[in-house]
Amino acid sequence: MSAVMFEKVALIGIGLIGSSIARDIRALGLAGDIVISTRSPQTLQRAEELQLGDRYTVSAAEAADGADLVIVSVPVGASESVAQQIAPHLKPGAIITDVGSTKASVIAQMAPHMPEHVHFIPGHPLAGTEKSGPDAGFKGLFKGRWCIFTPLEGTDPQAISRLKSFWEALGSRVDEMDPQHHDKVLAIVSHLPHIIAYNIVGTADDLEAVTESEVIKYSASGFRDFTRLAASDPTMWRDVCLHNKDAILEMLARFSEDLAYLQRAIRWGEGDKLFELFSRTRTVRRSIVDAGQDVDAPDFGRHALDDKPNT
Amino acid sequence: MSAVMFEKVALIGIGLIGSSIARDIRALGLAGDIVISTRSPQTLQRAEELQLGDRYTVSAAEAADGADLVIVSVPVGASESVAQQIAPHLKPGAIITDVGSTKASVIAQMAPHMPEHVHFIPGHPLAGTEKSGPDAGFKGLFKGRWCIFTPLEGTDPQAISRLKSFWEALGSRVDEMDPQHHDKVLAIVSHLPHIIAYNIVGTADDLEAVTESEVIKYSASGFRDFTRLAASDPTMWRDVCLHNKDAILEMLARFSEDLAYLQRAIRWGEGDKLFELFSRTRTVRRSIVDAGQDVDAPDFGRHALDDKPNT
Repeated sequence: MSAVMFEKVALIGIGLIGSSIARDIRALGLAGDIVISTRSPQTLQRAEELQLGDRYTVSAAEAADGADLVIVSVPVGASESVAQQIAPHLKPGAIITDVGSTKASVIAQMAPHMPEHVHFIPGHPLAGTEKSGPDAGFKGLFKGRWCIFTPLEGTDPQAISRLKSFWEALGSRVDEMDPQHHDKVLAIVSHLPHIIAYNIVGTADDLEAVTESEVIKYSASGFRDFTRLAASDPTMWRDVCLHNKDAILEMLARFSEDLAYLQRAIRWGEGDKLFELFSRTRTVRRSIVDAGQDVDAPDFGRHALDDKPNT
Repeated sequence: MSAVMFEKVALIGIGLIGSSIARDIRALGLAGDIVISTRSPQTLQRAEELQLGDRYTVSAAEAADGADLVIVSVPVGASESVAQQIAPHLKPGAIITDVGSTKASVIAQMAPHMPEHVHFIPGHPLAGTEKSGPDAGFKGLFKGRWCIFTPLEGTDPQAISRLKSFWEALGSRVDEMDPQHHDKVLAIVSHLPHIIAYNIVGTADDLEAVTESEVIKYSASGFRDFTRLAASDPTMWRDVCLHNKDAILEMLARFSEDLAYLQRAIRWGEGDKLFELFSRTRTVRRSIVDAGQDVDAPDFGRHALDDKPNT
């Protein structure tokens, strides 16, 4: 898999996702020319130090100019601004895609600016870690992970197929769905978990009866699992909350309703209800491991990593 | 560290925790004689197949008879029954401890039955994984983890010191606090995270608009982190909920209050409030990693483990 798939690729935004794409493109030889653009001169300089591309510019317009594939990897709230900047410079036949975690909003922001002569294919690779910035990216981030396309009606199937091959070259599996459904699915599998994690870490941080140092010291008993998601990029997640509001509010309402039920069972000592839920959820974990979507090792395999020196 | 610390050790309950203790005792040569007891003949047989002890019995009384150290590792709701069974057989000067996740309730259940001539020292090693049963235990589970004692007033300091040396031999660090404070601390660092994880997995499992197979397929985008805690032993966690009710209900109330605030910020598009919380929580993660209570590797280091074959 080392044939050039796109002569010129423009990467707008070079954080965890953008820089991982850059590393894969380079390692696999998928592009003749990689142009990297980001608003921040510091981040751009860092991308250059890491040798992530062939050319570097703070101008999204300049980067997109003449590109065969443009990948927009910015916080979703910045999508419209990027679309406006790049639109006049897009080459006929170019494929424009993004990696945003919300799709209806990104489409609403970008589609109206896209010229007729390009192929705009909204996308979302379900991959990442809690780290951010160009240093956080790595080769192989997308291997075995899903990438969801939410193409608009009438999009050229050949363009979709080319973009699909690109993500498959990175090791991804590609799915298609409509943007509204994507936003609902992601609200439950990704957005709600992040919001809940942020919330519980905030709650713990605010206690008076338990000190912060106690929370940290004893965090291995469960709490630390949540702190990983709650360490994710604040700008990205602020934008996700603002741009997938309806689906998130619906999932939050359901979550709170279920939690009230659980809370009531605890208050009234209804052990059978607790046992029923706690048994049912165990099988969900099993299915995820069986589907190859998580490791089977106890504690995420952390014990192998966090062994302390004292034996 | 291979001197015998206790001539005869009785392990009542041989699940994840009990069997990990057994493995460490044996590996480190800390006991002359290890007697294992559990109510279930099947589990007892499995313990014997795994060669976790020297003798095996379904009778807690028989196991405790003449033991110098008795470690009770059963779901906290079974504490009183075990205490009643073992009490008449306890040897003068014996140390009786437990590993329960709630302490005020365990003390209320066990202390009234303990004869004057033994040292009852409630304990709680903050260690474990989402797996359960004798096969799930492993050597070194307690290394670098905290073990919290909540001794009653007037307990012989020498007995506390002997038990402390025992846990330190297993690699633990030992803290002391009063049982009420322990229960508050654990409610936030352990019980609330587990309850929230169980709840969100239940919510996802109940959706109509998003199928279960979609939840599983796309779980790597955040959800899967919660499924680990939600795969923990249902009996153990039912008992924790029933036996630390007050502290848990208080933490749940705070969590829900904070979540309502967050939900309102999402509804009204208050990006600054979201950004403030999402930034603050990031530093908590940093502190946990700095304190050696979690790995620094992105994604808990899972990427090293879950690499898919396709390159």
